[in-house]
Amino acid sequence: KDSYAVTLLPGDGIGPEITAATKQVVQALATRCNFRIEWKEALIGGAAIDAKNDPFPQESLEQCLASDSVLLACIGGYKWDKNPRELRPETGLLKMRKEMGLFANLRPAKVLPQLIDASTLKREIVEGVDVMVVRELTGDVYFGTPKGIDIVNGQRVGYNNMIYSESEIDRIARVAGDVASKRGGKLCSVDKANVLDVSQLWRDVVTDVITKDFPDVQLSHMYVDNAAMQLIRWPKQFDTIVCGNIFGDILSDEASMLVGSLGMLPSASIGESGPGVFEPCHGSAPDIAGQDKANPLAMILSAAMMLQYDLDRPEEAALLEKAVEAALDAGVRTPDLKQENDGCKVVGCAEMGEIVAKLV
Amino acid sequence: KDSYAVTLLPGDGIGPEITAATKQVVQALATRCNFRIEWKEALIGGAAIDAKNDPFPQESLEQCLASDSVLLACIGGYKWDKNPRELRPETGLLKMRKEMGLFANLRPAKVLPQLIDASTLKREIVEGVDVMVVRELTGDVYFGTPKGIDIVNGQRVGYNNMIYSESEIDRIARVAGDVASKRGGKLCSVDKANVLDVSQLWRDVVTDVITKDFPDVQLSHMYVDNAAMQLIRWPKQFDTIVCGNIFGDILSDEASMLVGSLGMLPSASIGESGPGVFEPCHGSAPDIAGQDKANPLAMILSAAMMLQYDLDRPEEAALLEKAVEAALDAGVRTPDLKQENDGCKVVGCAEMGEIVAKLV
Ligand SMILES: CC(C)[C@H](C(=O)O)[C@@H](O)C(=O)O
Ligand SMILES: CC(C)[C@H](C(=O)O)[C@@H](O)C(=O)O
Repeated sequence: KDSYAVTLLPGDGIGPEITAATKQVVQALATRCNFRIEWKEALIGGAAIDAKNDPFPQESLEQCLASDSVLLACIGGYKWDKNPRELRPETGLLKMRKEMGLFANLRPAKVLPQLIDASTLKREIVEGVDVMVVRELTGDVYFGTPKGIDIVNGQRVGYNNMIYSESEIDRIARVAGDVASKRGGKLCSVDKANVLDVSQLWRDVVTDVITKDFPDVQLSHMYVDNAAMQLIRWPKQFDTIVCGNIFGDILSDEASMLVGSLGMLPSASIGESGPGVFEPCHGSAPDIAGQDKANPLAMILSAAMMLQYDLDRPEEAALLEKAVEAALDAGVRTPDLKQENDGCKVVGCAEMGEIVAKLV
Repeated sequence: KDSYAVTLLPGDGIGPEITAATKQVVQALATRCNFRIEWKEALIGGAAIDAKNDPFPQESLEQCLASDSVLLACIGGYKWDKNPRELRPETGLLKMRKEMGLFANLRPAKVLPQLIDASTLKREIVEGVDVMVVRELTGDVYFGTPKGIDIVNGQRVGYNNMIYSESEIDRIARVAGDVASKRGGKLCSVDKANVLDVSQLWRDVVTDVITKDFPDVQLSHMYVDNAAMQLIRWPKQFDTIVCGNIFGDILSDEASMLVGSLGMLPSASIGESGPGVFEPCHGSAPDIAGQDKANPLAMILSAAMMLQYDLDRPEEAALLEKAVEAALDAGVRTPDLKQENDGCKVVGCAEMGEIVAKLV
């Protein structure tokens, strides 16, 4: 296959800028490597609320499902912060994950030598850190029922159900086992099995799947509170981490801070089959939107994950990653990456896109 | 009042050693400051499982409730790790919290200038950090029902209910408001209100309580994933943090790693009335138990919190804290605190106790 349909979801804030830069880079790569991409666009988040009164309209879902893959920029902004839940940008994101069956979220936190000083942790602690967090994305307390706010004995009571079925745990464990076996071969499953029944089942099923079907993967278990400590104490102990949706939400964000610059972190959300969604981990930064100050590299690295996981072009994915590193080596930095006395030149979002496009 | 009944719960592992050292120090303080402590002991954790087949026997509960305050060392060990849930040391801890009504857990993370290099974070990031995490301790997914592991459509499903009532949120918000008003006056409430109904109620009630009854406290809200990042990115932005049980479990442990040495971190668990329980944040370190290598300072600092919160002797609490700092200034360190080239002398648990006792 040498032609792919890719849906772009530019979203809000700096989304359109980084999408344009990413598209240019991937286009240059396609030209160089002789494949074709047919680009489409669709609405999500605040942009979709404004245009369609729905943070993820049906036509966007259909457009995404009809594609080979989806590249999402970022969503959200002050403008929609006071909206009711069903008209908030995040709700569109959750709907997209659920309706596209994107149950596995892969979030690498890799410390690049060029940017090591951006970390708030000491150099010897973060040098060489390369952690992959595999987060379950369509279950847990995020989607569990019953849920709500009721009146009980004259007072309000709020509740959400933290729930996992065996099959949900089984399939995320397989993704994690697969990812770990292609990386360092070490998998740490994070839960709270000393307190929670749902975690006890999680631990049982993960243990079964990995010991039976991934005999080469070395499995360990860690409580979530300890994992939150160990990520700071000695992050190099981790290779691949697997956890449920809410613990993964917290730990993947914590892990991303080891890297120092959120502007470099990609992610992949994938399902059993069908298109995945690839997106940077950072937000929509409404305060700098439209000023050509945004950093497109996390979205460009997300495109590399798309090439690897959805378009089955691992070599092209590697080329793209190398081009990003080459740009850093060439001494150009977007404002967020600039460190005092690093001798680097500050460039805008568009120029960074052009530079990486030239380097692929 | 100048005489107090204090129950000691030495627990497991290094527990008895650090309890002995702490008792000696508090005894020296009592003599110096003209008050009396009547010491009792009771069983909890593995020690209680071995002796009574119950991780928190009824007689321990009664003994604690009949005291003015309780000092707990630490519990757990490999020996009981494979026990069924009801015969695990942690279960005793949860039972104690629930039955003694200890709904508020205060966990200060204060970076001491003497130990700043123990942190894995850069000096300029952690210097002067002084965060207090107020964690709700008897609600949330820890105790919520329904819970269990059922068979549904031929497969196992595990679930726990993340639930808070208005009155539970109200009372922890009041403790947090009170704590914040006596500290820097800033309170950050952490939740996941963009996804969870229970967090939406949390946010509403906390906002009501603080704006109405703590007008001098400056309240902000943060999502838990962002809080996990911000604690690493710029911890000095925080003064007092309030959150539910599970988010507090994770964030208080994360915050404690900013300090670098778990061996210095006390905690207080308090209720509406009745005795509180004061304990170090570290575990029972079974690998060094009985070797006189343990660090008693976190338990000694927990005794200082006991003096402040339960025995209403803030001046004596301050004296105790000063004695701990004076010991560090005198250049003695337990093995866990020793840094290469710090010029300090390594001492054992008992000797550290003696030194602090002399300094009070
Ligand atoms: C915006 C929010 C609903 C979302 C989540 O919690 O999953 C975000 O934090 C993320 O991690 O993608
Ligand atoms: C041992 C465990 C049940 C306990 C908890 O999760 O509350 C511990 O982690 C703590 O923070 O005191």
